[in-house]
Amino acid sequence: MTTTTPLRFVIAPSGFKESLAAEDVAAAMAAGVRRVVPGAIVDTVPLVDGGEGSARTLAEATGGRLVPVVVTGPVGERVPSHFAVLGGDGPRTAVVEMAAAAGLRLVPRDRRDPGLTTTYGVGELIRAALDAGCERVLVGCGDSGTCDGGAGALRALGARILDEAGNELGHDGYDLVRAKELDVSGVDPRLAGTEVLVACNPHNVLTGESGVAEVFGPQKGADAEQVAALSTAMLRWAEVLSAHAGTDLTLAPGSGASGGLGGGLAGVLGARLLPRFDVLLDHVDLDARLAAADLVLTAEGAIDYQTPRGKVPAEVARRAKRHGKPVIALAGTIGRGARRTHDTGIDAFAGILAAPIELAEAMERAAELVTDATERALRLVLVGAALAVS
Amino acid sequence: MTTTTPLRFVIAPSGFKESLAAEDVAAAMAAGVRRVVPGAIVDTVPLVDGGEGSARTLAEATGGRLVPVVVTGPVGERVPSHFAVLGGDGPRTAVVEMAAAAGLRLVPRDRRDPGLTTTYGVGELIRAALDAGCERVLVGCGDSGTCDGGAGALRALGARILDEAGNELGHDGYDLVRAKELDVSGVDPRLAGTEVLVACNPHNVLTGESGVAEVFGPQKGADAEQVAALSTAMLRWAEVLSAHAGTDLTLAPGSGASGGLGGGLAGVLGARLLPRFDVLLDHVDLDARLAAADLVLTAEGAIDYQTPRGKVPAEVARRAKRHGKPVIALAGTIGRGARRTHDTGIDAFAGILAAPIELAEAMERAAELVTDATERALRLVLVGAALAVS
Repeated sequence: MTTTTPLRFVIAPSGFKESLAAEDVAAAMAAGVRRVVPGAIVDTVPLVDGGEGSARTLAEATGGRLVPVVVTGPVGERVPSHFAVLGGDGPRTAVVEMAAAAGLRLVPRDRRDPGLTTTYGVGELIRAALDAGCERVLVGCGDSGTCDGGAGALRALGARILDEAGNELGHDGYDLVRAKELDVSGVDPRLAGTEVLVACNPHNVLTGESGVAEVFGPQKGADAEQVAALSTAMLRWAEVLSAHAGTDLTLAPGSGASGGLGGGLAGVLGARLLPRFDVLLDHVDLDARLAAADLVLTAEGAIDYQTPRGKVPAEVARRAKRHGKPVIALAGTIGRGARRTHDTGIDAFAGILAAPIELAEAMERAAELVTDATERALRLVLVGAALAVS
Repeated sequence: MTTTTPLRFVIAPSGFKESLAAEDVAAAMAAGVRRVVPGAIVDTVPLVDGGEGSARTLAEATGGRLVPVVVTGPVGERVPSHFAVLGGDGPRTAVVEMAAAAGLRLVPRDRRDPGLTTTYGVGELIRAALDAGCERVLVGCGDSGTCDGGAGALRALGARILDEAGNELGHDGYDLVRAKELDVSGVDPRLAGTEVLVACNPHNVLTGESGVAEVFGPQKGADAEQVAALSTAMLRWAEVLSAHAGTDLTLAPGSGASGGLGGGLAGVLGARLLPRFDVLLDHVDLDARLAAADLVLTAEGAIDYQTPRGKVPAEVARRAKRHGKPVIALAGTIGRGARRTHDTGIDAFAGILAAPIELAEAMERAAELVTDATERALRLVLVGAALAVS
């Protein structure tokens, strides 16, 4: 940190859910950096986890574009949606963000029964991506409002799920308890030549105690009885998928992603279920950029005990530490267990709140709060820098 | 900051009003420091501004004691109060904290008319200090609930305020509009041999646009009409005091301190009105301790546009900067204009809030929040220190 070499910052935040997109967080942080270190080199790398906003952020980050499509939403109404066609070299790649067609936000509060919602629109987005000539489809999971095991998406792509009597089932989660076998003769033939990758949290699985119905059912609106019914349906569905695919999908890492969408796409389309950051962060060349940084800043809406379990700041910190880089994380909210994040490589973290405030107001003023908090954090860093050389 | 020399911290915070005493803030910050820099030398210097808690903190800091006294409160009821007898060498010194006898907190919300409250109890505390053999009385101002120009205190000490007809007035603010002259024949004779020092904010004056009625009347509960009446009364009172003392007290620095208590004590007892930190901080030898620090931490309940105007963190920063020491300030609340505090020598500041929270809960959990915030701030400092030597 001599006076002749400008400090090089990499700013690699997640978005703040329902408040600021990752690119807005990054811009707000960059503004804070420039207030304190005017000559700094600032490299902003807005990051995504596959959930809400991922398609837009990746399109912007790669110089690609968003393609608008109207699809069937999770409760059956038509909803405006979109997928991204990424820029850059390599095979023409679509990013299908499942939340854009079947996200929890698209389910009215009084209809939040994940046994009745559908991923049908996700299948429509995949079909639209094929229509657009994409050779590779990256399905982003997260923030889903469904638990249909991907049945809706598969049906939209031409698959039929049959019961014991050979009758076709509907396309919701509860129905799957009667699933017996699959008829894939009508599946869109273009999929045979298409690589489908699902960006998942590998901790999410289809069945068992940590299965998708048990873990995510309640936050999608299911009561105890509905969770039990879905849990049974997911078990049956996992067996049908496993038999069809010739591989055991009941506990396969990522099979439970987005209400079992991962398992459905893997079992029927042969989609590969991959740890989300392995798939998503390569598109923004994160590692090379971290390697060039003097100081890495990241951020997320909340930093707490969940952060080390596959959230953006922990992933950034782990990667930065491979290059020995210091990492500071900003958080909208600092929650229980936040100090455990130091083990992931986050050297220091700071909250964005300045005064007692309602959550709603904090979310509305998030950009300003993030800029101010970045300034405050960096002024503390500069105190340390001066102390060390004094 | 080599590995062989431990870092030396001076922790010199104010109390957080109605939440944590200065010594509790200092202890909470020290705990945060020790989490991050276990081998640090930590020198805690709880600071006071003359207001609530000052007597207790100074007694503890100097190895003195608190003397309990029951006095007449601001609305006439008897209230338990106290003054401090400081430890240490030099003349036997009492600290009379006016807020302990006439503070706003002692005025029930439905009786907050500063034209009707009295400093009578402050005079009783001064008398009790004389009874205890004190040769010097330090009157701490701040947090007052009165605007009686010190009339009550003077009456308790034996002075009589007379109207045109030679009749004695009561001892509240509104009455002073009829003040004509003073009869000091009955004033406690021990005061002649006693040095009375008033620790004030020099910006507070008795009269005019920035007079005590105008500036502080509203926050003590006065409406516009009451402010105007008090303003007129203070002008008359200032004239009487000035004539008696043979010096103009209408705009004398500190004459408006604590609802004009400063002016009253100066005019009648010849008390000296001194900038509060000049009087208060010498008792804790702040400057010498700052000179020995590597890093200075301070704190206050709020950091905002008012901080540079005579609040503890600004004073600490100014003094620390004389020795070239870096200063970090923690704040319960970061308010409007906080960034102006950098001009006072505060290099960086941080808030204690981690998540959206009600003010009441934040105040209740203040100690824990302060410790956590100190830890977070120091981790940022350490990032900077490592950056500088890398």
